[in-house]
Amino acid sequence: MLDYKLLEALATVIECGGFERAGAALGLSQSAVSQRIKALEIRLGQPVLIRHPHLEPTPAGRRLLNHHQQVRLLERDLRSALPTLEAASPRLRIALNADSLATWWAEAVSDFCRAEGLLLDLVIEDQDVGLKRLRDGDVAACLCASDQPIAGARCVPLGTMVYHPYATPDYIARYFPEGPTEVAFRQAPAIVYGPHDQLQHRFLAQCGYHGAFPHHLCPSSEGFVRLAAGGIGYGMMPRLQVESLVAEGRLASIAPARSLAVPLYWHFWRHSGELLARLTRVLGDIVLR
Amino acid sequence: MLDYKLLEALATVIECGGFERAGAALGLSQSAVSQRIKALEIRLGQPVLIRHPHLEPTPAGRRLLNHHQQVRLLERDLRSALPTLEAASPRLRIALNADSLATWWAEAVSDFCRAEGLLLDLVIEDQDVGLKRLRDGDVAACLCASDQPIAGARCVPLGTMVYHPYATPDYIARYFPEGPTEVAFRQAPAIVYGPHDQLQHRFLAQCGYHGAFPHHLCPSSEGFVRLAAGGIGYGMMPRLQVESLVAEGRLASIAPARSLAVPLYWHFWRHSGELLARLTRVLGDIVLR
Repeated sequence: MLDYKLLEALATVIECGGFERAGAALGLSQSAVSQRIKALEIRLGQPVLIRHPHLEPTPAGRRLLNHHQQVRLLERDLRSALPTLEAASPRLRIALNADSLATWWAEAVSDFCRAEGLLLDLVIEDQDVGLKRLRDGDVAACLCASDQPIAGARCVPLGTMVYHPYATPDYIARYFPEGPTEVAFRQAPAIVYGPHDQLQHRFLAQCGYHGAFPHHLCPSSEGFVRLAAGGIGYGMMPRLQVESLVAEGRLASIAPARSLAVPLYWHFWRHSGELLARLTRVLGDIVLR
Repeated sequence: MLDYKLLEALATVIECGGFERAGAALGLSQSAVSQRIKALEIRLGQPVLIRHPHLEPTPAGRRLLNHHQQVRLLERDLRSALPTLEAASPRLRIALNADSLATWWAEAVSDFCRAEGLLLDLVIEDQDVGLKRLRDGDVAACLCASDQPIAGARCVPLGTMVYHPYATPDYIARYFPEGPTEVAFRQAPAIVYGPHDQLQHRFLAQCGYHGAFPHHLCPSSEGFVRLAAGGIGYGMMPRLQVESLVAEGRLASIAPARSLAVPLYWHFWRHSGELLARLTRVLGDIVLR
């Protein structure tokens, strides 16, 4: 059996962001924490922590942390079966897409988190990387647009998010006076979330345009909306995120007949305990628009 | 002299996210684009692109792309001196902190981007990584909290962003009935942006608390505000970002007497042309609160 005191030291160092604070959290001296980490590294035959430029786990350390998290989750189920065991806050590491986190996610899960005393450890990833992290055991669940199940995990559809190509009315008058034409697409600066974001390309293909287009890159949902509202580009945004700006007339669609529906799927390990099963039921009840 | 046709092929493949689209953008066949990339790799003696899981530049490819970007910027100055040369949109790759991008950034720069026809290529990084990318020549400028200048670059102070520890009134009533006490800090779930985010630790230290605290991790400015507004945690947020929620009474400070001022600095290469110098003047005129 693993020595979980050593794993706990590692998890606490990462969570607290330092040896001294981890010591305070565990009621140990800083050097006792260091010794535990060193003992872990000796048993493993390789480092578990990188000290510079940031304190972070090595890939091996990350694998240990994930195992530690899974054991914590299983312990939580045990504790609810045996309530006299001392309670501890559970923690779930979840990969999700940036637009969900910037829109419906918090409202959908906050009652559940409060009721269960659940702490979230969220990471933003696009679908390929998110599913890879699930496969690697680095996250317990992944919310993304892919419906390709991975072995050992379940995949539950959650509905779709609807995207429209929004810009300010001034921007539309300047760049799209004739509507979404090829000439306009060649000139009008778009906003793209990042190099792997395919929404803008899919929208242009839907309009029959396959050429190049000038674009800003902005890897932030909120920054994306702000750049569009600042009038320097148009881009595909979830209707959900901008409905108040649309209602106020500050953003409008450059092509009102066009939209893209992005399906969302919830992937999670089959055997990771009751807590994740209950969260899955909560997410199954949400209604996306 | 380098063969800039090859560099342009590389830049276009990355910007368009694929060989076929790059070909369309350059008026070349897909195989002609591949040949240019291959020619570049043969001259360099190493790959410039990684194909899987995503199309992205290798470190060497990134260095070439950055050089290509700098040459483009210098060409832009040349074109404004020689207006009969055909114009092209300039592009600036800038590293900045997530909270600036989620708040004042777009409003501060959008008039400038429109007037100059400037396209932004934004990357979100914390200060250490952002400054490293500037040093590596991967970005042309970096907006961050560090005032440590790097060799060859200038550093201009832009003011400060003020952070307060906000939560919902219900949350405050539940977890901080006696105000910000040690007992409360030990129980109340905080929200932290990521493992390198030191604001929460600095706030707790200011309150004289140095122990562990339960926390969510949420690497999204907008998601962070939404989790707090959903009532599942408190966290350090820029006043600028939440003033409407505070005015509506949906968020309040757990410790009204406490705040943290985070200074912001603009780092940029001294010799990267007039455009960056003008953008710097625009940023020098902003007034942060």
